[in-house]
Amino acid sequence: MKEGTKGLTVKKSEDFSEWYTQVIQKAELADYSDVKGFMVIKPNGYSIWENIQKNFDKAIKRLGVRNAYFPLLIPESFFKKESEHAEGFSPEVAWIQKNKDDSERLAIRPTSETIIYDSYSKWIRSWRDLPLRINQWCNVVRWETKTTRLFLRTREFLWQEGHCVYESEEECEKETLIYLNEYKKICEKILGIYVLEGKKTKSEKFAGAKNTYSVEAIMPDGKALQMATSHNLGQGFAKSFNIKFIDKDEKEKYPWQNSWGISTRTIGAMTMVHGDDKGLVLPPNLCENKIVIIPILFKKDKEKVLNKVKKIKSKLNRFNPILDDREEYSSGWKFHEWELKGIPIRIEIGPNDVAKKQIILIRRDTHEKVIVKENDILSKISEMLEDIQKKLFEKSRKFTLDNTIEANNMNELKKTIKDGKIALAFLCNSEKCEEHIKDQASGAKTLNIPLDQPKKLEKCIVCGSQSSYIVRIGKSY
Amino acid sequence: MKEGTKGLTVKKSEDFSEWYTQVIQKAELADYSDVKGFMVIKPNGYSIWENIQKNFDKAIKRLGVRNAYFPLLIPESFFKKESEHAEGFSPEVAWIQKNKDDSERLAIRPTSETIIYDSYSKWIRSWRDLPLRINQWCNVVRWETKTTRLFLRTREFLWQEGHCVYESEEECEKETLIYLNEYKKICEKILGIYVLEGKKTKSEKFAGAKNTYSVEAIMPDGKALQMATSHNLGQGFAKSFNIKFIDKDEKEKYPWQNSWGISTRTIGAMTMVHGDDKGLVLPPNLCENKIVIIPILFKKDKEKVLNKVKKIKSKLNRFNPILDDREEYSSGWKFHEWELKGIPIRIEIGPNDVAKKQIILIRRDTHEKVIVKENDILSKISEMLEDIQKKLFEKSRKFTLDNTIEANNMNELKKTIKDGKIALAFLCNSEKCEEHIKDQASGAKTLNIPLDQPKKLEKCIVCGSQSSYIVRIGKSY
Repeated sequence: MKEGTKGLTVKKSEDFSEWYTQVIQKAELADYSDVKGFMVIKPNGYSIWENIQKNFDKAIKRLGVRNAYFPLLIPESFFKKESEHAEGFSPEVAWIQKNKDDSERLAIRPTSETIIYDSYSKWIRSWRDLPLRINQWCNVVRWETKTTRLFLRTREFLWQEGHCVYESEEECEKETLIYLNEYKKICEKILGIYVLEGKKTKSEKFAGAKNTYSVEAIMPDGKALQMATSHNLGQGFAKSFNIKFIDKDEKEKYPWQNSWGISTRTIGAMTMVHGDDKGLVLPPNLCENKIVIIPILFKKDKEKVLNKVKKIKSKLNRFNPILDDREEYSSGWKFHEWELKGIPIRIEIGPNDVAKKQIILIRRDTHEKVIVKENDILSKISEMLEDIQKKLFEKSRKFTLDNTIEANNMNELKKTIKDGKIALAFLCNSEKCEEHIKDQASGAKTLNIPLDQPKKLEKCIVCGSQSSYIVRIGKSY
Repeated sequence: MKEGTKGLTVKKSEDFSEWYTQVIQKAELADYSDVKGFMVIKPNGYSIWENIQKNFDKAIKRLGVRNAYFPLLIPESFFKKESEHAEGFSPEVAWIQKNKDDSERLAIRPTSETIIYDSYSKWIRSWRDLPLRINQWCNVVRWETKTTRLFLRTREFLWQEGHCVYESEEECEKETLIYLNEYKKICEKILGIYVLEGKKTKSEKFAGAKNTYSVEAIMPDGKALQMATSHNLGQGFAKSFNIKFIDKDEKEKYPWQNSWGISTRTIGAMTMVHGDDKGLVLPPNLCENKIVIIPILFKKDKEKVLNKVKKIKSKLNRFNPILDDREEYSSGWKFHEWELKGIPIRIEIGPNDVAKKQIILIRRDTHEKVIVKENDILSKISEMLEDIQKKLFEKSRKFTLDNTIEANNMNELKKTIKDGKIALAFLCNSEKCEEHIKDQASGAKTLNIPLDQPKKLEKCIVCGSQSSYIVRIGKSY
């Protein structure tokens, strides 16, 4: 076996963290870089990102969003304009060495609200300029001090950040939730991951936002991972950056804004949720190559088999198949290689199959083997891919629901967290009660408040006063 | 008129530089940023970049290239490994303020050879790993000290950089020219700009390259603009970064490498080449919206006209038409607005046209007006778009050929340059003679050496010794 493609040496159930790192590296999704805290996204990983981009970009363009590009570097004074925002991001900002002609320090963007809203304050004049819906696909840098985890925690990552401006609060809030719903669709229909929608509590919201909404996914180790967020920024940034518009009534007003983002860390989540002891398992809707074709070659009938696989390959063009006809590797080696890399369906064709006008399909998720008549392959493969996508999502959904438990008091909460599950508990909106939970429940924190709330709210499980909501609580990435 | 969309106040022939800045800003392609030397690419500009990306990405994927992403920051020691490269890029590198845990200074990438080849040295082991063909779409920062010119000279720009590794010199050189040819196709078929292919002289080649090839375009002011470059890096970087592979003969060898790039500055070139006194002129193959539909509204028959334009719009869906039915602006205002923004075809429909079952087409490039029967619009518009694309390219080609003049001695060279043209002259390969030209001919320099050389080489126009080639000389951006 070639270096870097060796099989996994640990089981997912035994050492989840080591298993994760091995899958990411051995399936060649990403690699560590010599620059501390930075990663290299390799072609197998980047093609997944391209697919997320393609799908989400199409969705937001349909909603009237247009792409643009703003500077990488942000003047220090811009950061300071919105005080909560400045406080929230300052600890993790990387600064540029001052050059002779710089009047102030410049930071590498950790997020672009400030630099974008400076431009918006010049562009927006009247109600005719609204709504303004702009998105950018870019890299951001946050100087994490914790240990790097490929895709999950790195000092640089790729994402999109949408930034919209509206005339009214209603329109703003409505669209903030529309973008959240687009994230849900990407997670569920493309990444095959069931997500929990909700609103962040005051202490967990984005620095400078009025409301933050998120979609959270539960990982196999019971920790939650924030897949994407959508922030209703209210008028705070508009006031700090002096963004005003003349309304139809000729009066000058502050507009309402939102921002929303999804990043490459979702690739880490997808790996954790679907992967198994043989490696990565890719949802068909997410991956570039949905099929790998492996000819089973013997001296006898070799040419026949090679001719046949070439014909089959061109017939399956729409699935972007890989044909692995390398003769320097054995079939067994190839099976392992492509299982490790997570290709949804493997096709095997040997001399016997050529004679019988059949092919063998092996599903990556269940390892089920099906013999299919050559004439039926297009429909059989389409069905199988659909079924893989569906089953992966259903498994994720079932796991999430099975691992979300109501906790009626602190003891139940502690037990739930200790058992590696997510708790649903009534809580009041005091930051003190949230702090208490972090202290007592092994570092668990509120994830988000389900959008659908029960009619009757019980008492806060911490202080016993009237609760404000039922909220999801868990450990998180 | 709304601010930011007012018409141009200068003519292209009168103040080319001011005209350029006005077109870029008023057609809303880009804007200055408050960060010195940095620009904002606005949606109209970014959609052009997306189109260049889409076309080039497709072309290189067909050639077996895969996309990846490498760190934004590069350790200082990596730069120093290839001495020519380090010397070439050092003056324009932006450094990060050292953090506690950094062992050395980190630079923002001005180009990524060094950080990418560090990874390659770990990834490449055997001939089985070759050829390795990877590309990344990203931002780069070069700390320019000259005045910012939107798209043409900014401290940050967007580009792609391809980085391939090969077993043999022949394969490397062959593919270096294949990528150059893909750039030529993008320039000519998409951007509609005729380009001059050639090889850079020793003093103009990329820092660290064996050979640099470029495609150059001639701007209306007679200055050349380098549209894209493709570098045969030889084995220099492989040796500096210790990239080695075990060949089929079991021997350890250094591979051959190339790198190649095209950037957002081509959008500036496109603006200069095609624009006119009314604003931007977009080549149909480059732009998102190929048509704008403007209903001519009177009180009478208003609904009829509005219904008709909606039907026409949906019929023309494949051209991604804009329907400008805003009632707060006059038709005349709209004509100017969309001319300024360069939309290839304007459609006008008034009550009279509805009655006659016809529409009016106006070409952006020639202002020609054509009345077309409603039933013929699809074919007529397709033809007109094709013709606009063709004519823009032909005009660019003619201009370039008309402005490239043979210079047989220094006086002729000086005159050619002074007249704002490009010279073709015989030159020896001494750097001294190139320096002499820069001194004597108003700062003109060698652009590139045509790939097709005359059979007989005359004497060097500077020193009179045997020349090495005929070379293009001109001022440049």
